[in-house]
Amino acid sequence: MSADSYAHHFSIANIPFGIASSSTHPAPAAVTRIRDHVIFLDALLEDGVFRNTKGLPRNVFQQSTLNNFAALGRESATSVRTAIQQAFKPDSNYKPPLNAVIPVSQVKMHMPVHVGDFTDFSCSEDHVVNAGEAVFGKRAVPPGFPHYPLGYGGRSSSIVISETPVQRPLGQYRSKTEQDNVLFGPCQDLDYELELACIIGKPVRMGDIATAADADEHIFGVVLLNDWSARDILGLEIVPLGPLNGKSFTTSISPWVVTLDALAPFAIPAAVHSSPVAPYLEDPNPNGTYSLELTAEVLSGGLATQVCVAKLEWARWSFRHIFAHQAIGGCGLGSGDIIATGTLSGKTLQALGCLLEMTMNGKRPFKLKDGSIRTFLEDGDGVRITGFAGTPNDGVGFGECVGVINPALTLSRGVQ
Amino acid sequence: MSADSYAHHFSIANIPFGIASSSTHPAPAAVTRIRDHVIFLDALLEDGVFRNTKGLPRNVFQQSTLNNFAALGRESATSVRTAIQQAFKPDSNYKPPLNAVIPVSQVKMHMPVHVGDFTDFSCSEDHVVNAGEAVFGKRAVPPGFPHYPLGYGGRSSSIVISETPVQRPLGQYRSKTEQDNVLFGPCQDLDYELELACIIGKPVRMGDIATAADADEHIFGVVLLNDWSARDILGLEIVPLGPLNGKSFTTSISPWVVTLDALAPFAIPAAVHSSPVAPYLEDPNPNGTYSLELTAEVLSGGLATQVCVAKLEWARWSFRHIFAHQAIGGCGLGSGDIIATGTLSGKTLQALGCLLEMTMNGKRPFKLKDGSIRTFLEDGDGVRITGFAGTPNDGVGFGECVGVINPALTLSRGVQ
Repeated sequence: MSADSYAHHFSIANIPFGIASSSTHPAPAAVTRIRDHVIFLDALLEDGVFRNTKGLPRNVFQQSTLNNFAALGRESATSVRTAIQQAFKPDSNYKPPLNAVIPVSQVKMHMPVHVGDFTDFSCSEDHVVNAGEAVFGKRAVPPGFPHYPLGYGGRSSSIVISETPVQRPLGQYRSKTEQDNVLFGPCQDLDYELELACIIGKPVRMGDIATAADADEHIFGVVLLNDWSARDILGLEIVPLGPLNGKSFTTSISPWVVTLDALAPFAIPAAVHSSPVAPYLEDPNPNGTYSLELTAEVLSGGLATQVCVAKLEWARWSFRHIFAHQAIGGCGLGSGDIIATGTLSGKTLQALGCLLEMTMNGKRPFKLKDGSIRTFLEDGDGVRITGFAGTPNDGVGFGECVGVINPALTLSRGVQ
Repeated sequence: MSADSYAHHFSIANIPFGIASSSTHPAPAAVTRIRDHVIFLDALLEDGVFRNTKGLPRNVFQQSTLNNFAALGRESATSVRTAIQQAFKPDSNYKPPLNAVIPVSQVKMHMPVHVGDFTDFSCSEDHVVNAGEAVFGKRAVPPGFPHYPLGYGGRSSSIVISETPVQRPLGQYRSKTEQDNVLFGPCQDLDYELELACIIGKPVRMGDIATAADADEHIFGVVLLNDWSARDILGLEIVPLGPLNGKSFTTSISPWVVTLDALAPFAIPAAVHSSPVAPYLEDPNPNGTYSLELTAEVLSGGLATQVCVAKLEWARWSFRHIFAHQAIGGCGLGSGDIIATGTLSGKTLQALGCLLEMTMNGKRPFKLKDGSIRTFLEDGDGVRITGFAGTPNDGVGFGECVGVINPALTLSRGVQ
């Protein structure tokens, strides 16, 4: 599938932000995208397109990450996005500088932000219960989950941009034949997780607190996230300190940060009510979530097999909740921090956002379109996640987050 | 206790690295310390003291963190430390520039590194078993612990330098009278954890692997670490994803990074053997640990009450093990990353490195020197951790890591 098949994700209704380079713009810099074209924002700034945006530093779009732009806060991002929409709307007379607009096929996308801290939450009750059953053999809601979204501290430095290969990790895990025997070697149960994630814009200072009501002012935008998971490594380590090497090897995100302004037309009441909740989690907005469909496909033998279609609105906890729960302890949030939803699953077999759930931890193999059988991912397999809100005519999408599995290293290769 | 009472920690046998500012050096920059004096390293570099250190960038000691210096690797740090020892040994003719040497009482210490990622492990079997009993009511070694050190991803952005106040966090926890009732408010069971931590120097590239045998080349040095813990918040959230808000609010470290070269004279065989282990954890060095004593005191009413004396050598897993276990999955390690030992406890009541263990989760109150009774920490209480190896004449120490508890904010103060 070529990159421009996502043109309808990036109509003028979207105007996401990202970081790109090209032969004509070798230094990674801030961009937006309209259909099949990427637009370098510094050229528009030079051209005066953002003259009405207050306090925009002259060099803000020349930087190799969006952190400083995002840190300016919601008002600045809204103003820049609106100015781009005005300049590029069908009846506009604006002529952008020739070198500012590049076909998307001719750019390389980079990490949109430098990530200071990454927390991955669990917002989906279906996922939490299904995963608990697959790992611990019992369907149960964990003690904290009715009160707030559960989460773990993820690894920031191994978050990579879509299309970066994913190296199968080495680790220790229980033998499948003798549970008391612990083996060391390449992960045997490599999985994906279908997620969305907020990227923080305006920071929350350490020692300050922020609540669900403050969230939209601090969320710069949303990306797709694949929390690659080594189920066997995770299974041995998870008690009692939670995930570490089962998750830390790689996390992939999509390159385009879709703003809450772009998602606003798709805001809807949360289907799952989470009241009564603690005061910091109370959402004053009757529209607690977004109507947004996510799809995961496994890629093998040149064919894509759809393995999951899930909706954000099924989740028990929202973006505002995960923002507030991370912030309430006073740790502070930095621009570029990532706060993810965890796997977004539903109630049917077609709506399970990871293979752990879909195969019940390897006990229900499934067939791919190329005829091969899987329980977990094999070397050479890819996973593609997409997300879209609305109709093809008026919708807003995320493009894709894709990764292909490379074989594990062997210990003898050692360290650089 | 005045800062210079640690003079014997910082004899010429130590030569740690840190970041300091003073009225004469307002921009934070790299320093070392000899007894009661702090020495700005850029002035020594200008003076040619490091002429034999290969590849030392001219501005490396002018920077506000040690990351770039640490990234040069063990050989550079060893060479710089040796050159300082040569220049300042008793029979040296070297006269440092007048403005390079400042009394320690006249400097402010800053975070020594920018921390990209922080993992806190559990190296002490006594702690793991005691803490498990205190929280879950059962003495048991977790399934993974015999095979490798367990760990969780900590929060990087809330790691602060010693003397930074610690704000009591808000969060949700079980009512002590009705276990099914979950309350929201200031943490009631605030605790410290007595730990050491490695700071990574030479990075491990993402996708590469590194083993225990590689560790000493990548560890820049060691600091004291207090992993402040909200036991009640942690107790509700820990199943199944591990610590998040129970830990994320603040972590304190000591300002002086003590090198492995300084600790080398105190290297000893590990008292607790951890063989057989997976190949990446095999330590080819017969001296697996360091003979190092750590002390924790609770400060209240102007008096210090010693609550723990523990030895690093009691731990089941070593610095080399936690380095290797973090690296083996291929996530990479960055310069400035922190990898901590977890609470270092022993077998006696005087050697329990946190109040959770010492009070059996609040069931065994104890008396402070000022006559007051504690189970956990109250507002205004301080905790001071120190660490020292060797005798007062030839020893090497870490100085102190101290923090005083400030009251929680209330929700109405809201967000900046």
